[in-house]
Parts: sequence; structure tokens; C-alpha cells
Amino acid sequence: MGYLETHRKQFLSELYELIRIPSVSAQSEHKGDMKKASLWVKNALKDVGAKADIKKTGGHPVVTGEIKGKSDFTILFYGHYDVQPEGDLKEWTSPPFEPTLRKGRVYARGGADNKFQFYSHLKACETITEERGELPVTVKFLIEGEEEVGSENLKSFVKKNSKSLNANVVFIADSPTYTEKIPNISLGVRGLLYVQIDVRGPRRELHSGIHGGVLDNPNEAISHIVSSLKRKVGKEERVLIPGFYDDVVPIPKKERDYIKSLKFNDKKYMREMGVKRLVGEMGYSTLEKRTARPTLEVHGLCGGYIKEGAKTSIPTNAFAKVSMRLVPKQDPQKIYRNLENHLKKTGFPYALKQFSGEKAYMLPIGHPFIDVATRAVKNAWKQNPVYTREGGTLPIYFFPEYIGAENLMVGYGSPSDNWHGPNESFLLENFWKGLNTSINLMDEFGSFKRH
Amino acid sequence: MGYLETHRKQFLSELYELIRIPSVSAQSEHKGDMKKASLWVKNALKDVGAKADIKKTGGHPVVTGEIKGKSDFTILFYGHYDVQPEGDLKEWTSPPFEPTLRKGRVYARGGADNKFQFYSHLKACETITEERGELPVTVKFLIEGEEEVGSENLKSFVKKNSKSLNANVVFIADSPTYTEKIPNISLGVRGLLYVQIDVRGPRRELHSGIHGGVLDNPNEAISHIVSSLKRKVGKEERVLIPGFYDDVVPIPKKERDYIKSLKFNDKKYMREMGVKRLVGEMGYSTLEKRTARPTLEVHGLCGGYIKEGAKTSIPTNAFAKVSMRLVPKQDPQKIYRNLENHLKKTGFPYALKQFSGEKAYMLPIGHPFIDVATRAVKNAWKQNPVYTREGGTLPIYFFPEYIGAENLMVGYGSPSDNWHGPNESFLLENFWKGLNTSINLMDEFGSFKRH
Repeated sequence: MGYLETHRKQFLSELYELIRIPSVSAQSEHKGDMKKASLWVKNALKDVGAKADIKKTGGHPVVTGEIKGKSDFTILFYGHYDVQPEGDLKEWTSPPFEPTLRKGRVYARGGADNKFQFYSHLKACETITEERGELPVTVKFLIEGEEEVGSENLKSFVKKNSKSLNANVVFIADSPTYTEKIPNISLGVRGLLYVQIDVRGPRRELHSGIHGGVLDNPNEAISHIVSSLKRKVGKEERVLIPGFYDDVVPIPKKERDYIKSLKFNDKKYMREMGVKRLVGEMGYSTLEKRTARPTLEVHGLCGGYIKEGAKTSIPTNAFAKVSMRLVPKQDPQKIYRNLENHLKKTGFPYALKQFSGEKAYMLPIGHPFIDVATRAVKNAWKQNPVYTREGGTLPIYFFPEYIGAENLMVGYGSPSDNWHGPNESFLLENFWKGLNTSINLMDEFGSFKRH
Repeated sequence: MGYLETHRKQFLSELYELIRIPSVSAQSEHKGDMKKASLWVKNALKDVGAKADIKKTGGHPVVTGEIKGKSDFTILFYGHYDVQPEGDLKEWTSPPFEPTLRKGRVYARGGADNKFQFYSHLKACETITEERGELPVTVKFLIEGEEEVGSENLKSFVKKNSKSLNANVVFIADSPTYTEKIPNISLGVRGLLYVQIDVRGPRRELHSGIHGGVLDNPNEAISHIVSSLKRKVGKEERVLIPGFYDDVVPIPKKERDYIKSLKFNDKKYMREMGVKRLVGEMGYSTLEKRTARPTLEVHGLCGGYIKEGAKTSIPTNAFAKVSMRLVPKQDPQKIYRNLENHLKKTGFPYALKQFSGEKAYMLPIGHPFIDVATRAVKNAWKQNPVYTREGGTLPIYFFPEYIGAENLMVGYGSPSDNWHGPNESFLLENFWKGLNTSINLMDEFGSFKRH
């Protein structure tokens, strides 16, 4: 038995420690937990033999680390120690920040997204070092604390530290496999523009009997606004912000053919989601719409009296939290400006706030790293991987420009993990498979012929 | 000094006791407080010499009372002991259920709506009885506990008890004066249809990166629905539920002329409300739109993540709380059915729940009670009253049919009381003016010649 096999229990109990820290980046009450988590990660990096640092940013700190290896080929492992808010506690079967193993799954907020995945890289380094004394390649770590809130400060941090972060490849495990059995190599991620739209109404909350019929009602105004952003046009649903689709790069024919060959089962998907129909753009398959086409989703909507029963008043304000997932060439700042112009035209008194603006990323078609990753994955999962884009977002589009490295993404999560929702979980099995993938990857890049 | 003048302090401290009971009918956690308040009212009725009872209904109990007077002409005093939810505590300057006197106003939830107003009737009876030994007329009391949640059980209660509630006039103080100085006699109230629309989405809360673009998003669905209920059509805003305006009785020419003569100041109103424009139907003045035309308002809107910052998930459900204020001849049940048909056509998975459905009421034009009330009011307020309809709703349309009496309404509140909102208050002065109005009214009806 190798080092990994004899240390499973220890690796898991360490990971549980990290998961128990409620490092929710969105909520200011968790600022102390964010600090605690960053310190924990720094110490964990030191424990596996890395030079490690906590670096200040305009927001939550970034943890960096480096281990010199046999070759100076450098892998930068990117990950994030922050997690989504836990949401409605009533919907959780076990407490969100107490990792609980049930039927091969570990349930906890942020266990899947992203804690066990980036922790695999650390333990992969430890395993190789303990068994062979040295890593085959040099590795660096960049573990941030703002991924769940749009990585606002990461871009400038990476730009400023481009030299020390310089690498040959960025490796990221922050996505699901294709199915629970079939692994996935991600060819790209969508970008993200996240905004909050606030609408103001009368100065005071007012009795709707006395004042109803003459005043702009913020609940109605925000509904009109949301309804004007994306709606049915003919038989399809489209985003209606002017210019939204202008710069969209069409999905290459070869990729469309490949996606088609995966024979994604819409009926099974609908059953799993508990819905009776699928919507969205016409002429695109479900997988295409979920990964390679842009979209807009409203995450939060609120105004007025939202408790039990009836209250008849006109509220003073209402808001919507809205995000757009973007594909290559779409520019979040341009779309933000178009949205602002669109809102102006509605005539409602609004305020617009931006939470994040990230471009999409795609690995150049036919890039040699894909073969490297395929071998590493196949060896660990005993399955051929599938190659799709991620529909989600990672702050990685600027890595090629700033540190000279493309992004290679392999998901250690699984499609049924319910990231961001209640009862988030991960397959314990995938912790070991992921760990092996990270080990294989270092070995593969150790013998990679650079061009 | 008469009895009233020497008992002001005592009357007020009694009223404060009642106000301190948080009798919020909408929230089940206050069920005990509702019981407590009904018992308090029953005892207060007994204290002023009434036979009093607490009567069970399908919801919160009704308190009834009767005092035989010199004449068998009978005034039924209607009022309600329930109050609106207090809303956001942060917006209150003093605790909502601790009556606090500041600059001539008593601040407290439900102090204005409706506690001090109906309590005036009780203390008016006490004052007359103490001073003269007997009331000039017979009075009955009907103090309900569900006015703020649509008086669902009152209609059947009144129907069942039509004999014991039989009266010659129903008198109600549950509205504001026209200005802080000028009293108002209300010629009618609008009806109310209050519904909650719930929209369902996917079975679980889902990551919008992974699933965005193919699923009906409940936040968007509820926005489309709300946006389809009332919106700008040309230059005006109209309710778009099919058939909504079909049965609307036009405002009589004479009433429109009278309203015009009141010279309501739109600019001053906009300043007070803190808004830059007024909206609504074209061709009607602000007062007409607020009192004599039907409207729709959205009181609550909610779905998904509504806390601080960004969370990128697709929620499982969203809802809107919507009410329609109705004018004579509009039938809430017919409109409910039309709304249901309208919702079906939207194609979204919805559930519709009705909180209340009440028709409008108008006192027949030129009714002799108007003169009686005018004398009672003039004498107490030392001002000529104005005659307008209320934009709000009271469950009174069925009184003529069930107990043979029309409704006479005089408001003891004031337009700046902020009913239903934070820092609700009433003018202490109006408690005394109201009390005198109730006394005058009994005297006037004591010498009223029935036809």
C-alpha cells in the first residue's frame, strides 16, 4: 500500500477541518471566518513543503505557495477557499458546516465547491514527496477567497504578481465530471456579469387603499424591468438587452457535432430537475445552451411584504439580483453599459450595482495539454473522458496574458453534487480519484516536451 | 368640565393598554395576542355597560355588544381590533407596540388603524351614560379581528347573526380626515381582491452556471406574470386582466365636478410622497384614481437569494402578493376567475391563493344620513366636512342586505398617520374630536325622523 492508501483517514479529517470553517465570502459577518480559512490553507501548504504566504487584496486575501520540483516546468494550481452562503437552513438534512458522510457522499457547504478539489492538489504533492522525495515538476498555488463573489480583486492581483505566478500551465479542479462515472476535461468556461438592480418608490411605505392607483410601485417596476431583460420572442426565449448577442462567437461545427455525439438525454434531465419543459434559445441543444451559449438568470427578487398572509402596502423599494453568463468575445463592460442604457429607457428610478464582470475563456482548439490531461484522467478514473465546456465561470481568462499559461480544467466534482444549493455534497470516491489525477498530471507534465 | 374632560388621562391609558397587545391577525405566532385583544375589548364593552360576547368564527373571534337606549333606533358601531404586521423594526423610531407620544401624535402600530377610532365609540357611550344615565339611541358593537386580512369570516358571521345585529345605521370610524384640519364623510369604499401567486421552478436550487439557459426561472416567471397584470398601454397604465374594467360603474358627473372643486394639489402630493411623477389611468384626476377607479398593486415579491452580495443559483420558487381595489359592480369572484384564466395562458407552473374578496360599497346618492353626519361632524371639528369616497376597503357591502342598514363613515384618522407603514401614528387631538363626533352622532340619531 502506498502513502495515499495509508493516509486516507488523515487526509479526510484534515479536509473536514477546513470545511468546518464557514468561509462565506458574500456575507460580511463571515469576515473572521475568511481570515481563519486563509490561515488554515497557508498552514496546510507549509505542511506539504511549500513556501506559503497570505497576500492582501482589496477584499479577502489570496493564499499563494510554491514547491520547487525536479523540472522547472511549472503547474499553477488555482482554487478557492471561499464558499456560497448556505441558504435556507430548513432545507439542509445535516448542518451545512458539519461534514456528514452518507452513502458515499460527504454533505457540506463548499465541500465540493471547491474545498476537496483544491485540497486534492496539496495532498497529491504530499504523497509524491513522501514517496519519492521530490516533485517531478515545480508547482505553485493560487488559492483565492473571492471566487463566489466574482473574484473582483484577483485580476489586478495576478497582474501585479505576474512574475512570481509565472507558469507553464494553470491547472484547475473546480467543475463536475460528465456523469458520476465519466470524467470531463473542460475546454472553456463562460464569463459572468453579475448586477443588482434597485428600484425606488415612494418615500414611505404607503397604504395601498389610500394611495393605490397613482404611484409607481417598486414591485411592479422591478417586474417590468426583469421581464424586459429576457423573454419569449416567438417560440424562443432571448436576452433582450440591446447588443447582447453582437459579439458572440458561434459554436464551431466540429464542437457541435461532438456535443451531438454525446447524446444528452433531455427527458432524463427534465425528470431529474422536476420540470415539464425546457426553454431558451431555439436551434441549440440543452448542452449547448448550458455551456456554449450566453444566458441571463435572475437569482434574487425582493420587495415589500414577504411574510405570511396579506399586507396591503406599497413598498419603498425593490431589487433584483441578475447575472449573465457570457461566451468568448462578449465583453462584460460593454454589456453593462448597454444594460444601463436599457434601464434608463424604462423610466423607472433605478440604481445599478456591479458585483462581478469576467470574460469567458477557451483553451485553443487542439491544444497539446488536452492529450496530457486525457492520459492523467484515464489512468485515475479508468474511463475515457468527455470534452465539454463548463457553463459556470472561473476568473481565468487573464492567465494567458498575465502569467503566460493556458488553463487546463478537470472536474473532480459530480453532476449531482448540488453546488450552491442546499445539501451540497461530493462523492468521497472522487477525492481519491482526484488526488490520483493530480499526481498523474504532475508526472505527465514532468515528461512533457515543450515546444 | 364634563365627564370627558375630566377622564382624558384615564381614557388614554386604557387605550394604551389595548395598543400594547400586538394583535397582528396575519401572523399565526400572534394567535394568543388576538385572543387577548378580543377579551380586552369584551371587558371594555362590559365596563361601559354593554352586554358583551366573544363569538367564534372560522378565524379570529368577533366581539359583539349591545346597550339599550332611550329610543330603539339602533346604531351598529363597526370596528376592528386586529392590526397590520409591524414590518421592518429598523424603520420604527419607537417600538411599534409601545404607544409613544411625540408632538401631539401617538406612535404605535394599529393605534390609528383602528384602535383609537373604535375605542372612541365606547368612551362616547360611557360619557353619555355617566352624564345622563341613558343613551339617546340603542347601540350595538361589532368589533372584528380579521379586517387586515380580508375579513374572510365576517360575511357569513353577519349573515348568521343578522337578527341580533339588525340596526338602522352602521357607523364606522376607520378612515382619515381630508386634511389634518378638514374632516371627511366617506361616501363609499373600494372592494378588495387579494391573492398570492406562487410559481414553481426546478425541484432543487441549482447552480446557474451549470443549469442556466434551459430552465424556467421562477424569479423571471413571476416577473413576467406581474408585468402582464398591469402595465403601460400607450400613455396610461392599465390593469390587463381580461374583463377587469367590464363592470366598472363610471364616476357620476356631479361627483367628478365636486372632486374637481376640492382642487387637490398634485405637486404637493408628489413632494410629500417623494416621487417625481404620478402614473395610472388617463383622463382621471389623482383623487379619482385613488378613490373611485379600480387599481392593482403588488405588495410583496420574493424569490431566491435576497441577502447581501451575490449568489448564483436558480431558485425553486417565487411569489407575488397582489391586490386589486374594486369599485361598485366589480365582482371579486369573477375577476378571480379571469385572473386564473390569464395565469393559465402564461404557461408558467403557478398556484393561486385568495386571501380576500370584498365588493365595493357606496352610500346611495343624497341619502339623508349624510346630513345627520354633517351636523355631528361640524359640531365636533368646528369645520365643514368634505365628502369623498375612501380608496381603502371595509367589509361592509353586505350590511344593507343582511342587517338592513346603510354604512355611514366618518374618519377620525388623519392623512399623515402612515397606516400600514412604519411609525404609524394618530393625532391625539383627533381622539377627543372623534369621541365628540360619536357623542353628537348618537344625539343626532336620537332625534332623527325615520321615513
